[in-house]
Amino acid sequence: MTNEMIYNPHVSVDCVVFGFDGSKLKVLLIERTINEQNELYNDKKLPGSIILTDEDLDDAASRVLTELTGLKNIYLSQFRSFGNPKRTDNPRDILWLENTTQLKIGRIVTVAYVALIKIDRKIQFKSEISQANWYDLNEVATMNLAFDHAEIIKKGLEYIRHSLDIEPYLLFELLPRKFTLSQLRSLYDTVHQTNSDVRNFQKKVALWAYVVALDEMEEGVPHRAARLYKFKRTPNP
Amino acid sequence: MTNEMIYNPHVSVDCVVFGFDGSKLKVLLIERTINEQNELYNDKKLPGSIILTDEDLDDAASRVLTELTGLKNIYLSQFRSFGNPKRTDNPRDILWLENTTQLKIGRIVTVAYVALIKIDRKIQFKSEISQANWYDLNEVATMNLAFDHAEIIKKGLEYIRHSLDIEPYLLFELLPRKFTLSQLRSLYDTVHQTNSDVRNFQKKVALWAYVVALDEMEEGVPHRAARLYKFKRTPNP
Repeated sequence: MTNEMIYNPHVSVDCVVFGFDGSKLKVLLIERTINEQNELYNDKKLPGSIILTDEDLDDAASRVLTELTGLKNIYLSQFRSFGNPKRTDNPRDILWLENTTQLKIGRIVTVAYVALIKIDRKIQFKSEISQANWYDLNEVATMNLAFDHAEIIKKGLEYIRHSLDIEPYLLFELLPRKFTLSQLRSLYDTVHQTNSDVRNFQKKVALWAYVVALDEMEEGVPHRAARLYKFKRTPNP
Repeated sequence: MTNEMIYNPHVSVDCVVFGFDGSKLKVLLIERTINEQNELYNDKKLPGSIILTDEDLDDAASRVLTELTGLKNIYLSQFRSFGNPKRTDNPRDILWLENTTQLKIGRIVTVAYVALIKIDRKIQFKSEISQANWYDLNEVATMNLAFDHAEIIKKGLEYIRHSLDIEPYLLFELLPRKFTLSQLRSLYDTVHQTNSDVRNFQKKVALWAYVVALDEMEEGVPHRAARLYKFKRTPNP
């Protein structure tokens, strides 16, 4: 190993923040505008940043979310690092990076985090430096995203699926405090890529001690009001 | 974010390789000798390396294992990156790094991988640049390891435990092709930090369709020969 063979990559963090609007799983993306020879080009990217000199990885991920969305105290799980040397091969990405960071950028290794949040959480969508929005995952699959962010979102979703096998409680991070069985089924099917039968799903949930029926119904809905449920943490899931 | 706030860390990979000798879980470590003002200091470290300029992370991890142990085609899972700015605070670690890499080293973000291998696999323990050895996990807990490698091993073991909940097959990566129930129980207990009763464990294994009893007994053992079993991949674990 000689000196000539090595130069330092930059290290960044990127956050995949999932939310659920009652029927669809969404991901939080930041608008990006690039001035290419005086033509403005728009696309989207994950909330992210180069890590600062004395910043640990988890701290960088929290800082990014707070700076770009105002979100604080979000539980972020680190799930994978991405370091393909070709992930910064697109000249458009390099141009944008150099304009926004004022740094000469070569290669970037990024450490990716995932978070599940209730979509009704107050988010500061517009800041001085950025504009954030929720996008349907289906829609995202057809978009041109910055860098390898499409791949990072895909791996983030796989990670969530695996995590739910171990810790089914996590699903409830995405639901409102009181939810209908239809919302729960829709979320379950989205995450697991299944298409549950309504009756079978009701039977399944009846076995989940941590889902409790309330003496309350939905209000102000155009369809027949459904029963509301809540999540209750139990000693043994 | 200004230019002054950022400098590039180095990026490395480290490999936590677990093996099982029939009674204890072991981890593969590399001997390290540091010349401190003409006093030789010895300790151990994980197999690892700074990533090369055009090298992807997975490729770097495979290269490290091959270079240091001769092991090829090992399935390595990336499980976590470690980037605490203080992880390279020990002057001894910096001295060793600068001597071995001929680079000026500041901060290093490392991407950690884990592998499970059969301990009877042929390993080239000694190479021109290194000496590798297996160490009991219990013993490792009392050692002074390089950098934050003790922490990385601990997190690697946690990752393996979680993975086994989803993919119990993984346990058999560590056992010889034919094994006794006592070996299986010992490994199971080590990984899960349990202390299974012999009879209860036999009942549990009887329910595992993927563990098959053979018409063969151990040979050449000083104690009463035990029945041998093998692992059989089944469609539904």
